[in-house]
Amino acid sequence: MDVHEAVKTRRSVREYLKTDVSNLEIAEILEAGRWAPSGLNNQPWKFMVVRGEKKDAFAKHTKYGRIITGAPVCIAVFYDVESGYDRDKDMQSIGACIQNMLLAIHSIGLGAVWLGEIKNQHAAVEKELDVKHELMAVIALGWPTKGTQGDAERKEMQDLVV
Amino acid sequence: MDVHEAVKTRRSVREYLKTDVSNLEIAEILEAGRWAPSGLNNQPWKFMVVRGEKKDAFAKHTKYGRIITGAPVCIAVFYDVESGYDRDKDMQSIGACIQNMLLAIHSIGLGAVWLGEIKNQHAAVEKELDVKHELMAVIALGWPTKGTQGDAERKEMQDLVV
Repeated sequence: MDVHEAVKTRRSVREYLKTDVSNLEIAEILEAGRWAPSGLNNQPWKFMVVRGEKKDAFAKHTKYGRIITGAPVCIAVFYDVESGYDRDKDMQSIGACIQNMLLAIHSIGLGAVWLGEIKNQHAAVEKELDVKHELMAVIALGWPTKGTQGDAERKEMQDLVV
Repeated sequence: MDVHEAVKTRRSVREYLKTDVSNLEIAEILEAGRWAPSGLNNQPWKFMVVRGEKKDAFAKHTKYGRIITGAPVCIAVFYDVESGYDRDKDMQSIGACIQNMLLAIHSIGLGAVWLGEIKNQHAAVEKELDVKHELMAVIALGWPTKGTQGDAERKEMQDLVV
């Protein structure tokens, strides 16, 4: 899919068919994340592919747990603090990394939603999973059910340019 | 350009031809930024298109000033703090927004570099320009000279998956 089309037609998708997402598709998505730019090229991200019962460790710590439970697979994105050099810039890089993955997901025909609320409970998830990296977000994904389209509202360009 | 190709072939470009970048191309790039996702859909970004002498206000506050001076146009990206709700998440959204623009730039055939070092001197730039938003980054862009390819090293996937 063309970059411009992907950027403009991507929407949050929160309901999925039960059809699984293949490991080949997951690999392609993670590969897109891997190629994101970062300050000093420090690549401060870590990924966890989450399926089955392991999803519960995430689902129970967010009010959007039903989306995680309903997705065939999730990608949890962590901040590798040891690779970090500037928190603001590292957060930006992780945002670029997540966006690469969201565009790759959409380009394949899959649908996803970037769940950020769970970040507020990151310590609880990390403790439960015994992970030393800091949880940033969970991307829930799957094949979209018909008619699932998220909010498409954006501010007008004239209000964004200073 | 296909999303996967754009993600994998985009590199930092730091030297540009003198050929100008049209307003139509700039509009397409900003439009890609406008469509980035953000937490609560708060869209906490502002853009400034910078040409000519105005570039000096940025160039003199970063050690990468020569890249800014050498680019026909720059896009300065600001954090609209009043629209913000969670600094980490807002930084991530701004990173997604910048990545959308970098992919759009590359897709058009232009080249760009994400300059983050200037963020360390954001207050000085804001004071000079009398801008109330917080400077996050400057994207320097133009038509690439031949043979300019940035660092393409990435960590191995096996080291990124936990």
